Amino acid sequence: MKTKKSFASDNWSGVCPEIMQALAEVNRGHNPAYGELGDPVNEQAIAQFREHFGDDISVFFVYNGTAANVLGVSQLMRSYHAVVSAKTAHLNEDECAAPEKFMGSKILEIESRDGKIKAAQIEPLLKSIGFQHHAQPRVISISQVTEMGTVYTADEIRELAGFAHRNNMFLHLDGARIANAVAALNTDFKSMTTDAGVDVLSFGGTKNGLMFGETVVFFNKNRAKDFEYLRKQGMQLHSKMRYISAQFHRYLSDGLWKKNALAANKMAQNLARALSPFSSLQITQDVKANGVFVLMPEKLITALQKEYFFHLWNESPEGEAGRKEVRLMCSWDTTEADIEGFVEALKQNLI
Amino acid sequence: MKTKKSFASDNWSGVCPEIMQALAEVNRGHNPAYGELGDPVNEQAIAQFREHFGDDISVFFVYNGTAANVLGVSQLMRSYHAVVSAKTAHLNEDECAAPEKFMGSKILEIESRDGKIKAAQIEPLLKSIGFQHHAQPRVISISQVTEMGTVYTADEIRELAGFAHRNNMFLHLDGARIANAVAALNTDFKSMTTDAGVDVLSFGGTKNGLMFGETVVFFNKNRAKDFEYLRKQGMQLHSKMRYISAQFHRYLSDGLWKKNALAANKMAQNLARALSPFSSLQITQDVKANGVFVLMPEKLITALQKEYFFHLWNESPEGEAGRKEVRLMCSWDTTEADIEGFVEALKQNLI
Amino acid sequence: MKTKKSFASDNWSGVCPEIMQALAEVNRGHNPAYGELGDPVNEQAIAQFREHFGDDISVFFVYNGTAANVLGVSQLMRSYHAVVSAKTAHLNEDECAAPEKFMGSKILEIESRDGKIKAAQIEPLLKSIGFQHHAQPRVISISQVTEMGTVYTADEIRELAGFAHRNNMFLHLDGARIANAVAALNTDFKSMTTDAGVDVLSFGGTKNGLMFGETVVFFNKNRAKDFEYLRKQGMQLHSKMRYISAQFHRYLSDGLWKKNALAANKMAQNLARALSPFSSLQITQDVKANGVFVLMPEKLITALQKEYFFHLWNESPEGEAGRKEVRLMCSWDTTEADIEGFVEALKQNLI
Amino acid sequence: MKTKKSFASDNWSGVCPEIMQALAEVNRGHNPAYGELGDPVNEQAIAQFREHFGDDISVFFVYNGTAANVLGVSQLMRSYHAVVSAKTAHLNEDECAAPEKFMGSKILEIESRDGKIKAAQIEPLLKSIGFQHHAQPRVISISQVTEMGTVYTADEIRELAGFAHRNNMFLHLDGARIANAVAALNTDFKSMTTDAGVDVLSFGGTKNGLMFGETVVFFNKNRAKDFEYLRKQGMQLHSKMRYISAQFHRYLSDGLWKKNALAANKMAQNLARALSPFSSLQITQDVKANGVFVLMPEKLITALQKEYFFHLWNESPEGEAGRKEVRLMCSWDTTEADIEGFVEALKQNLI
Repeated sequence: MKTKKSFASDNWSGVCPEIMQALAEVNRGHNPAYGELGDPVNEQAIAQFREHFGDDISVFFVYNGTAANVLGVSQLMRSYHAVVSAKTAHLNEDECAAPEKFMGSKILEIESRDGKIKAAQIEPLLKSIGFQHHAQPRVISISQVTEMGTVYTADEIRELAGFAHRNNMFLHLDGARIANAVAALNTDFKSMTTDAGVDVLSFGGTKNGLMFGETVVFFNKNRAKDFEYLRKQGMQLHSKMRYISAQFHRYLSDGLWKKNALAANKMAQNLARALSPFSSLQITQDVKANGVFVLMPEKLITALQKEYFFHLWNESPEGEAGRKEVRLMCSWDTTEADIEGFVEALKQNLI
Repeated sequence: MKTKKSFASDNWSGVCPEIMQALAEVNRGHNPAYGELGDPVNEQAIAQFREHFGDDISVFFVYNGTAANVLGVSQLMRSYHAVVSAKTAHLNEDECAAPEKFMGSKILEIESRDGKIKAAQIEPLLKSIGFQHHAQPRVISISQVTEMGTVYTADEIRELAGFAHRNNMFLHLDGARIANAVAALNTDFKSMTTDAGVDVLSFGGTKNGLMFGETVVFFNKNRAKDFEYLRKQGMQLHSKMRYISAQFHRYLSDGLWKKNALAANKMAQNLARALSPFSSLQITQDVKANGVFVLMPEKLITALQKEYFFHLWNESPEGEAGRKEVRLMCSWDTTEADIEGFVEALKQNLI
Repeated sequence: MKTKKSFASDNWSGVCPEIMQALAEVNRGHNPAYGELGDPVNEQAIAQFREHFGDDISVFFVYNGTAANVLGVSQLMRSYHAVVSAKTAHLNEDECAAPEKFMGSKILEIESRDGKIKAAQIEPLLKSIGFQHHAQPRVISISQVTEMGTVYTADEIRELAGFAHRNNMFLHLDGARIANAVAALNTDFKSMTTDAGVDVLSFGGTKNGLMFGETVVFFNKNRAKDFEYLRKQGMQLHSKMRYISAQFHRYLSDGLWKKNALAANKMAQNLARALSPFSSLQITQDVKANGVFVLMPEKLITALQKEYFFHLWNESPEGEAGRKEVRLMCSWDTTEADIEGFVEALKQNLI
Repeated sequence: MKTKKSFASDNWSGVCPEIMQALAEVNRGHNPAYGELGDPVNEQAIAQFREHFGDDISVFFVYNGTAANVLGVSQLMRSYHAVVSAKTAHLNEDECAAPEKFMGSKILEIESRDGKIKAAQIEPLLKSIGFQHHAQPRVISISQVTEMGTVYTADEIRELAGFAHRNNMFLHLDGARIANAVAALNTDFKSMTTDAGVDVLSFGGTKNGLMFGETVVFFNKNRAKDFEYLRKQGMQLHSKMRYISAQFHRYLSDGLWKKNALAANKMAQNLARALSPFSSLQITQDVKANGVFVLMPEKLITALQKEYFFHLWNESPEGEAGRKEVRLMCSWDTTEADIEGFVEALKQNLI
């Protein structure tokens, strides 16, 4: 294992100690498989979700975010319906066409510099409704935190949900980093989802200290009818389910989700601050959550990547000749020392 | 959690201590996600597979057996090809049509009392080859251990592989319980797969002490080309991959797989022996691995299930009036005391 | 073109003169494409369907029977649902897995000697309902005429529909040869479909004198919602739609469908009668519609096929050593002379 | 039927008399179904294709252009591969997501004002190759004539094919209106396809005088392997195949395709010329084939559409306030009188 922590992604980090502890505790004796037959671990975890999201929800555990997004959206559509998302959405660009494969549907992509989309951008797509030659827009999918590190306010989400519902559509929220957004806005899960009109949520944790597993939350039990079959058919039903549910139970208890998210967010702020004095760098997005997006000279990127892996996000930013946009992610376990080390390396390479 | 261990399934048991230990050990610092960029944990695990299966293999980790079966088979087919399997095969009956969904293909089912199939039964299906109105048989899928608890010998597998290859087909082996089979036959993995001509293997561990994860092994690297995309599109690429690879690395080290499998198999033998004196019961299948299939009076089933959950396997066995066939599974953690408790309950209810 | 008419299939015959005439008549000027914008040809054809099936129907034209079956059934299901059909059903055996591909669903097959299925045979499959590991039975699909040449009575259809509806399922009728069945039973379309509780019908004509096209009829307009998108996505929306609708309009006018069907049926009766004196032949199915199924000595088959092509239906009928089952189909244009010629050839080869 | 011919689409027109004649001629006696068993009509049609495209081709008939495009492209891809096309491509925008449904694949769209794409625009997408999170670009699909009425030269096609092949990709040509392009450039089919390096062609005729049917042509027989199964599974195998093959046989004989195409193209030239004097109109695309794209004042559109249906192509052209872009299509049967009538109506409404 590398001794140095990278800023590659929040999924390069390990599992936080509280979750390891929860896994150890649930590892006793036999337990019903597949979350069936009143599996008590499963039921406790679901109860915990109700605490945070209200009572009229249905909760299903799957393996990862790809699946939570694809299956959650698929539940609300038929194959001739279309999803509307930002071009940059993970669902659109980073799933190797898993949505197209499982749903047989088209994704209608919307250009966005900050990863957020607005109702006015979706409006023109409504002209396709009722025209049999076009896929029918049905679900709007947004990411919170977005893939550009930005954050929707609860009001912005409510506006999109309202627009969706007025047009017989649904709103899906890809919450791979929802904890970071909620922590950043100093609000709670319910305000940003249930109360804002979200129809289905992919609730992630792996990027914030969990080992594996993701949760699909429907905010109207009727909408969740038969989802268990879709999950199974989607190859996402875990046999030893307790090892997913126990993680989420712990994650939602005693503010663990918030502790981890705040830690990561704070480090991103610190990193951004540490980078701001360098005139050859330019921070491109509002730093709200745990990512910092930076224009960086190409040579510097090459040099730095020998020590620290991080992802190129935009290889040819408009109007930039020698610089590319990179993404630096902080994690629940990122430390001040990690940042200092990175800044030190940066200085060395700028000389 | 229930204090009493059931005989419901080997996936009701927990994770064995060695695997918990391996998970704890790998939980340090940052590690490349997705098994990419030379992730050292991933590479060590793959090296361990080469030790057991030989060098010309390609190894991919996925989340579960459903996925390993569906994706492994899918890799060798196009949608107009068909899979041939026993009617009782998990792939055919217990995946909520996941294969049909992902592959868009038909499964041609073969009747079998013991869960095993023979080349002579597949022969008539070959008439479809070249007839454009019929799905084209392409992959033969067998389960080892079968869903009826029986075991193929290496020779039987070799025969099926030969038949497959002579007819331009492939052989897939669903090894959800392959460790139990290899332990039962006192052989090794290679003899039963690589050397027997298997083309693709679903290598399971969750039923034998692992927490999650399954491995797809291709026995010819060319056949594995591009499988990483199929895995991703199949929603089966884990971000924190090290927590799967570390389990398999440990599982294949120091004979852990064998220790667990032998323990479960032995308990099945003991259970079968303990049941044999009861004249109202009848063991229906050869007890080779860790499952015992028994005809049991309906009333007894109802009574016993109040204390011990187990699955009905056949609700209306031919020629049986008052008895149904049940499946009793032993696990790596089943003890003599568990069996004694069950037999005691059985006696109480037979009075 | 062969001068001799075969008994291969009713789709080896040509287009009847009335339909050719209708195509010529509709071939004037411009007409809205895709059946859109109040296309008058389309509307007249649909009105004609209402005459025969009642008012509460929705009518959609597609290209062929494969599509009518697959899309019609698909409309009533999600991918985790299953279709129940006879093993011999065209939908199951002769579509190269088109249903599995388009629907992603499983077909649960039922053994049947005469091609018909009964509620009692479907009953055991209901145990899967509510069990998340199994595909959920949702549509029962029957063929009228069956693939074995037999015919369901309206009462038998009503019984299956009742069973389906009591169990939250639907009934689909593959009517590739429905005209032959209705003519054989001397009834009308409505009695056998609308009034019997059928939910969706594939209404064929190509086997009875049409050039191309098939109709999907839903017997409840609500069930047809959005079907136009499924049709388009299923690659079945014809641009010059008038050339399908005009055919069906003519087919349903002035009893053309019945005239053709009666002609074919009568020839099958005559053929069966002509074959009955031959002791080496054995008619295996009740001759109701336009097909005759016969056990025939292998050598005779080989000899006859040099002059007349016809299909082997069962290569190894149970309990038969030297004979195989063949299918002899009559068509709207089969003549007494054709039958005489065939019987003559048969005699020649029996000597 | 409307007495006035619209300029809505070339599929609003009827079937040309030569094709009606060919259908009548082939309507004699029995003929093997499905193009099987050496169907002589089918073989003659295929021979005719070889005359025009060379010997190393494989030819398959399907029902329509949707299917020819989807199945032809699908043959060259696996689900994790992606198609690259212009955003305006029919395949991308006007198939109600049929490609996504059947292939399970993503379409990567390229912005284009004239409907044509260039290698330089595709280049950046190649970065995804080898990155497991992204769909893998595999087929470039272009339309000839494009959806904007423009035409690729043979050189431009050759360049795209070269780019495709150098990057391990294929070139698909959607030739719904290929006859119009070939006629416009005064070349032949072979120069523009076989010799230019096209891998698979959708060869259409319905927009140029045929009744139904489309042809998939592969320019390398190896690439066509097993395509018959994909066609059948794609619900595109016609039983009475002779009625498709006879049309194409006639279409490719005696220059019928060219006669019809030249007629339509000429009318488009005449229409464009007749519109050019009107200062409130603006022709937006190079008029090469049979379509004229025009910016038209909104009020005029509304007024004209009362008499003549035609399609809005762009509701909000950039930089235009009161005008929208419409498409006026000429057909093989458009006459000078039709154009005069239209221009007259235009004048009336401009007053």
